Amino acid sequence: MSDDRPTTGRGRLTGPLLVVGTGLLGTSIGLAASRAGIEVWLADRLRKHVRTASGLGAGKPAPEGGIPQLVVVAVPPDRIADVVVDSLGMGAVVTDVGSVKQQPLEAVAARVGAESLTRYVGSHPMAGSERSGPLAASASLFEGRPWAITPHPTADPEAVALVAELVDCCGALPVPMDPAEHDRAVARTSHVPHLLAVLAAGRLAEAPADHLSLSGQGVRDVTRIAAGDPELYGQIIRANRAAVAGLLAEVRGELDRVIEAVGSDDGEALAEVLGRGVSGTRAIPGKHGGPALETAAVFIVVPDHPGELARLFADVGEIGVNIEDVRIDHDPGRPVGVVELQVGAHAAGRLEAALEDRSWTVHR
Amino acid sequence: MSDDRPTTGRGRLTGPLLVVGTGLLGTSIGLAASRAGIEVWLADRLRKHVRTASGLGAGKPAPEGGIPQLVVVAVPPDRIADVVVDSLGMGAVVTDVGSVKQQPLEAVAARVGAESLTRYVGSHPMAGSERSGPLAASASLFEGRPWAITPHPTADPEAVALVAELVDCCGALPVPMDPAEHDRAVARTSHVPHLLAVLAAGRLAEAPADHLSLSGQGVRDVTRIAAGDPELYGQIIRANRAAVAGLLAEVRGELDRVIEAVGSDDGEALAEVLGRGVSGTRAIPGKHGGPALETAAVFIVVPDHPGELARLFADVGEIGVNIEDVRIDHDPGRPVGVVELQVGAHAAGRLEAALEDRSWTVHR
Repeated sequence: MSDDRPTTGRGRLTGPLLVVGTGLLGTSIGLAASRAGIEVWLADRLRKHVRTASGLGAGKPAPEGGIPQLVVVAVPPDRIADVVVDSLGMGAVVTDVGSVKQQPLEAVAARVGAESLTRYVGSHPMAGSERSGPLAASASLFEGRPWAITPHPTADPEAVALVAELVDCCGALPVPMDPAEHDRAVARTSHVPHLLAVLAAGRLAEAPADHLSLSGQGVRDVTRIAAGDPELYGQIIRANRAAVAGLLAEVRGELDRVIEAVGSDDGEALAEVLGRGVSGTRAIPGKHGGPALETAAVFIVVPDHPGELARLFADVGEIGVNIEDVRIDHDPGRPVGVVELQVGAHAAGRLEAALEDRSWTVHR
Repeated sequence: MSDDRPTTGRGRLTGPLLVVGTGLLGTSIGLAASRAGIEVWLADRLRKHVRTASGLGAGKPAPEGGIPQLVVVAVPPDRIADVVVDSLGMGAVVTDVGSVKQQPLEAVAARVGAESLTRYVGSHPMAGSERSGPLAASASLFEGRPWAITPHPTADPEAVALVAELVDCCGALPVPMDPAEHDRAVARTSHVPHLLAVLAAGRLAEAPADHLSLSGQGVRDVTRIAAGDPELYGQIIRANRAAVAGLLAEVRGELDRVIEAVGSDDGEALAEVLGRGVSGTRAIPGKHGGPALETAAVFIVVPDHPGELARLFADVGEIGVNIEDVRIDHDPGRPVGVVELQVGAHAAGRLEAALEDRSWTVHR
C-alpha cells in the first residue's frame, strides 16, 4: 500500500482549507490540518458548532467572500450534493467525506459543467465514533485508518493529488477506488451487516422479559451497531440503494435456503450455509491490515470492582504478552466478571501459567 | 430471583453424580461437583476424554453396574435423547444440558413409561467458551450464570429440586422455564442472531479483497459468532426447528419490508424498521441483570505494544473508576490502537480529565 502514499512534502496543499460541516468528521479534519500548519476555515448551518470547533483549535470562521484552495464537505448525506455544487462555484477543488460515493457524484455531474466536475473528487474516511458533534472530534481520529479516494474518470489528477495530500496530512492511509466499486464494498462491509443487525435486534424489541434473561454475549455483539441513529443510517442506505438492494437480494436468496433447510430438516443444506459464514469470518483482514494473526483466548475470573482489571493488566504487562483484544462478559446475575484476552496463539499457554502463578483463576 | 434459589443445605444431592459426556460442559460440572464434595462418575464414548477429565479432578471412571443418584447428560444434541432414555433405565434422576429442550423431551416421552418420565428434568446452563473439550473445562464456568431448568408437567418435584441443587452447587442462578418457552427464548436470543450473523458473513466469503479492506469494527462484531462450529450449530438449529422457523418467517417479512423500502426509496418505512432495531438493543438487560447502567464511552489512544494497556488500566484503577466494558479497535493499517472504555456516565468526564493529566491522548 505504501506505493499509493503521496510524498509528504506538502507540495500542493498549502491552504486555505474550507471545512463545511463542523460535526465529528469536519472538526477532526480541521484539527488535523491546523496541527499541520494549514490555514483552516470553518462553516456550518449551526453557528454554535462553528464557535465550538473554532474554540477547540480546528480553524477560524470562514471569511466572507474568501476563496479556499480545497473544500471538504462534511455534511449529512442528503445535503452533500447541494453543498458540493455550491463549493465548486468558488473555483476550488472539492471533496466530500460521505459514506456513499456514486449518488452524490451523479447528482453533482447533472448540475455542473465539465470543467467544474474535474475539480470534484469524492472520498470516505473509515473512521467514526459512537459520539457525534464537534466535541467528539480529535486530530488523531484518522490516524492509520483507511480513507477511500474515489475519483471519477474525468477528475483532474492534480485535484486527486490534493485530496491525497489531505488524507496524508490526517495520518490516514489512502485507498484509491472507483466510486461505484466503493459503494458495493461498503454495502457489503457496512450497510448490509447493519441491516442484518437491525433484523436480529428487531426480534428482541417485543420479546417477553424472561426470553431476554437468556441473552448472552453473542446476541449483544450481533446487535450492537443496530443502536446507531436511524435518521443517519436511513439516509446512508437510501443513498446506496442500488448496491444495498443487490446484496439484499442475495441475502434473501440465502435466507430462503435457510428457511427451506430448517423446514425440511435438510442438514446438508444448512451445513453449507453455516460453512459459508465461517469462510466469511476468515476473509476479514487481520489487525493492521496484515494477515490475520492466529490468536487464542485466555479466560480469567475478575471480581467486579475498581482496580481488579488494573491489577490484571499490570500482571499481563509484566508477563510481557501483547493483548490483541479484550472482552468483558456481561451475563446477568454474575457476581464476578470473566475477562477474555485474545493473545497470540504461541503465547497463550505461557500467559495462563504465569497468571495462575500470580493467583488468578484461569478457565482452562 | 433469590426466592427461586434452593437452600444451600445440600439436603438432597448426596451423589453419586454420573456425568455422561466429558467435554467442556460435562467436565466443568464434574469439577464443580467434586469441589463440593460430591462423588462424581464419568463416562464418555471417547475413553481418552474420561482419562483427561479424571486427571483434572472431575471425578473417576464410572464403575460397572453402579447406580447414581443423578445423571447429567452432556453429549452432542443429536445423541441426547438416546442417552437420556438409557440413563432413565438405571432408576436415577436424569437431566441434560443441551441447548434445546422440547425435542429431546418429546423423543424421550415417546420411548419411556410414565414413571420413568417423572425422573427426567431438562436444563440448560448459559455458559460456554470458544474452546471445547475437557481441557477447556473449569469448576467456575457456571459461576453467576443463568441456568434454565425446564421441567415438564409430570416431572417429580423432588427430581426438579435435585437438579436445582446441582445448579446451586455449580454456583449458577436457576431460571425455571417451560421447555417450549425456553426454546422460543433461545431461538430469539441465540439461534436466529447466529443465522443472521451467518448471512452477513456469507456475503464476505467471496468478496474481492479490496472490498474487505474497508471492514471496520461493526462488521467484525456482527459476524463474530458465525465462526462457530457448523456441525454443532446445525444440530442445535435443527433440534429447535419449530421456534427457529417461526422467527425466520418474521425475519423474512421484515427483510421484505426493508427490500421494498429500499427499492421504492420509502424513507418512512425504512426508519420504522431501523427504529425497531434501536428498541431491540435497548431491551437487552444490563450487567448483572439489573436495569442497564447508563454508561459513556471514553476513547484513549494506546500504542500497540506490550505494557501500554497495563499502564492504562493501572492508571484507571488509581483514578478509581470502574470499567464496565472494554473494546480495542482493530482497523487495518492502524499504527496505534484506540481503546474504548465504557464507564458509568457520571464518571466519564472525571476519567477523561484525569487520564489527560497523566499524558494519555483522549478523543473528546
